[in-house]
Amino acid sequence: MKPFRADILAIGSELLHGGRVDSNSVFIANMLANCGIRVAKKLVLSDELRDIQSALRSSSKHANVVIVTGGLGSTVDDRTREAVAHTFGRPLAVRRKAMQILKRQVQGRGRTVTPLLAKQARIPSGAIVLDNCVGTAPGFYVQEKMAHVFVLPGVPREAREMMEMQVVPILKRKLQSSTYLWSHAFNTMGLPETDIQQRVASLFRKPFAVDLSLLASTKGVKLTLSCWRPLKHKTRRSAAEDFPEGDILIQDIRHMLEPWLFSEGELTMEEVVGQLLSSLHWALALAESCTGGLIAHRLTDIPGSSTFLDRGVITYSNRAKQELLGVSPTLVQKYGAVSAQVAEAMAKGIRKKSRVDLGVSVTGIAGPGGGSVKKPIGLVYMAIDGPHGNQSQRFQFFGDRSEIKFRASHAALNMIRRYCRKC
Amino acid sequence: MKPFRADILAIGSELLHGGRVDSNSVFIANMLANCGIRVAKKLVLSDELRDIQSALRSSSKHANVVIVTGGLGSTVDDRTREAVAHTFGRPLAVRRKAMQILKRQVQGRGRTVTPLLAKQARIPSGAIVLDNCVGTAPGFYVQEKMAHVFVLPGVPREAREMMEMQVVPILKRKLQSSTYLWSHAFNTMGLPETDIQQRVASLFRKPFAVDLSLLASTKGVKLTLSCWRPLKHKTRRSAAEDFPEGDILIQDIRHMLEPWLFSEGELTMEEVVGQLLSSLHWALALAESCTGGLIAHRLTDIPGSSTFLDRGVITYSNRAKQELLGVSPTLVQKYGAVSAQVAEAMAKGIRKKSRVDLGVSVTGIAGPGGGSVKKPIGLVYMAIDGPHGNQSQRFQFFGDRSEIKFRASHAALNMIRRYCRKC
Repeated sequence: MKPFRADILAIGSELLHGGRVDSNSVFIANMLANCGIRVAKKLVLSDELRDIQSALRSSSKHANVVIVTGGLGSTVDDRTREAVAHTFGRPLAVRRKAMQILKRQVQGRGRTVTPLLAKQARIPSGAIVLDNCVGTAPGFYVQEKMAHVFVLPGVPREAREMMEMQVVPILKRKLQSSTYLWSHAFNTMGLPETDIQQRVASLFRKPFAVDLSLLASTKGVKLTLSCWRPLKHKTRRSAAEDFPEGDILIQDIRHMLEPWLFSEGELTMEEVVGQLLSSLHWALALAESCTGGLIAHRLTDIPGSSTFLDRGVITYSNRAKQELLGVSPTLVQKYGAVSAQVAEAMAKGIRKKSRVDLGVSVTGIAGPGGGSVKKPIGLVYMAIDGPHGNQSQRFQFFGDRSEIKFRASHAALNMIRRYCRKC
Repeated sequence: MKPFRADILAIGSELLHGGRVDSNSVFIANMLANCGIRVAKKLVLSDELRDIQSALRSSSKHANVVIVTGGLGSTVDDRTREAVAHTFGRPLAVRRKAMQILKRQVQGRGRTVTPLLAKQARIPSGAIVLDNCVGTAPGFYVQEKMAHVFVLPGVPREAREMMEMQVVPILKRKLQSSTYLWSHAFNTMGLPETDIQQRVASLFRKPFAVDLSLLASTKGVKLTLSCWRPLKHKTRRSAAEDFPEGDILIQDIRHMLEPWLFSEGELTMEEVVGQLLSSLHWALALAESCTGGLIAHRLTDIPGSSTFLDRGVITYSNRAKQELLGVSPTLVQKYGAVSAQVAEAMAKGIRKKSRVDLGVSVTGIAGPGGGSVKKPIGLVYMAIDGPHGNQSQRFQFFGDRSEIKFRASHAALNMIRRYCRKC
């Protein structure tokens, strides 16, 4: 019942030095896990031909599956095709199917296939061409002894589409894994990582081997349970029915972490808030100061957010607070712009002015300037005015300007969530 | 004049499967480049003891410098300390200096050092303890034959601080490199990657070896020049004086890309806009629809943005457009909310209502719903009203909702930049 082993090779000097971060391996690992394949390592390499070849040689020996991303573009520093050709002795040639894909995609953008772009249609001999419905570079697949090697573009949307539509079906057919990764994630906020570990430790003395991992970030602490399970047990619709002992563990943890749990699985905080507001048919208006529009930005990342978000205002100046929210200059002078009183007046003001169900406000000091002994950097007040009355809360966040902004936006969304759920 | 070689090992199952992306290696690579050290590869590994040990063994043989990040926490899945101890035969023991660091950091947060947390003070024998001024886990440094191995926490702020204040000074003293990485970056918008390559190709027939790399993203195309140079030439204050031939190349490229160039080096689009507005003493007010607060969020990430940003409004509903911007319902009915006419009315409205120098508006269809044949997803109108008169522009963006929002915010910032610079 051992999972197959995969290596991911992410190619591109920009991933090592140019300020870009590889994000493909996250969804690649998730999709592979569903096929009974465990990612053992990820290697990030520059566009040096020699380094790519040596990694291809090593990974195709040790892994069942090798997923290569990047270096399929048309510029001089795109050398992945060449590296695969050399390593496996499969000379490159322009392939008709690859050229068709390239033409369709380039012409679809109203441009023509230049000789430079045509380089992308050159594919190692014997490789199977993989279609690219999003970008211009076709991918390809070769089998080298025991290793299934897939070469995909580096652009995340293109790589994701190709993985989902082409790589996964091939792997399911070819490998016929007898295992799959059973997993469940809890997203919490407000309880430190070590406290969570201590609370759940007692549950892990049972005989079945479920892995526990904890991940702290500005979004809170994520606790993930996982274990490789025989595929023959994956017959039902729900994970609970597939693995009853695992389901009991999930219920125990859910009960234990209830006050801090804001979602399970992949559901984000903004999605939870969006769902709650939609189900209550509440319209929301935001008055942001130190978060500078970040709360609105996060909520409007959800498709259909126009059904619950009426408007937002970012009142950076005191004049804006007065004109848009009706916050009196006397109040600001008396308590300061960063105070519970002003936060409450902002929430009431935005709710009244926009005639919505829920008014939410945030005011604070994101730094690096503006802090004092009495009101240090990271001090943030939030308030809500709505059908369940009004409330305000004081927070002290740590980190740099961006972190404080993010943590404040996350706390504000959590405050809306709890207000909606009356908890 | 060959640079030293470094490997980066990023440890943590969450980096392979848990949805977190390693971002440390970017600044680590930059700092190492300044010490004459080239990152040859980055390896991302799970918390499996065996995998970490095998990577440590291999990298300490092949690289002059090994930077390990992550796995120094106090939970069960933090095993980096143990792996280093086993690999190099250096048993772990609680060290006084490490315990002092731990106590200072934990108590500074008003908590106490539990036995679980105390695990973080266990350090391999003979290692030099590295202070952590940001978080709780101390780092450490061991020299293994020719390799300098540094073990840092995975949290970016902690790793960055430790690299800068402790690792870099040690490396400068120990390695005494004779090279450094000379580099220069151009940030462009509006010209495709392949067009840029064709334009600059003619400049690269000269005898000196400067590497060119191109990186396309939602922020535009970044072109980076780099080459390893003898350190003895790095005597002057400016890169131009260090390397006159490189400076000529920079000037040629700058001239060639001028219409599309929005910044050079690390300067971001929002910083450029912020600097321009500050130097003109112009106050800005934003009226965002489809970007949902993202423009305001990006501008307020800049410290001191309150000096030029007066306010922003996010008018998702037509009622909000009318109440906050004075956009007449007749106009919206006649042309649609996504039109040049409404964009112009929004820009004029926000400028008038807030009595600022510059009013900027964005209205469009971010998708996935709301598109039609006449007004497809990704269609965005933007307008500016200000001292140089008013203007509007139509854009058609591609990608998913998040990408369209980001591209629109970037185009809007670029439009403000060009308006301010009258170009």
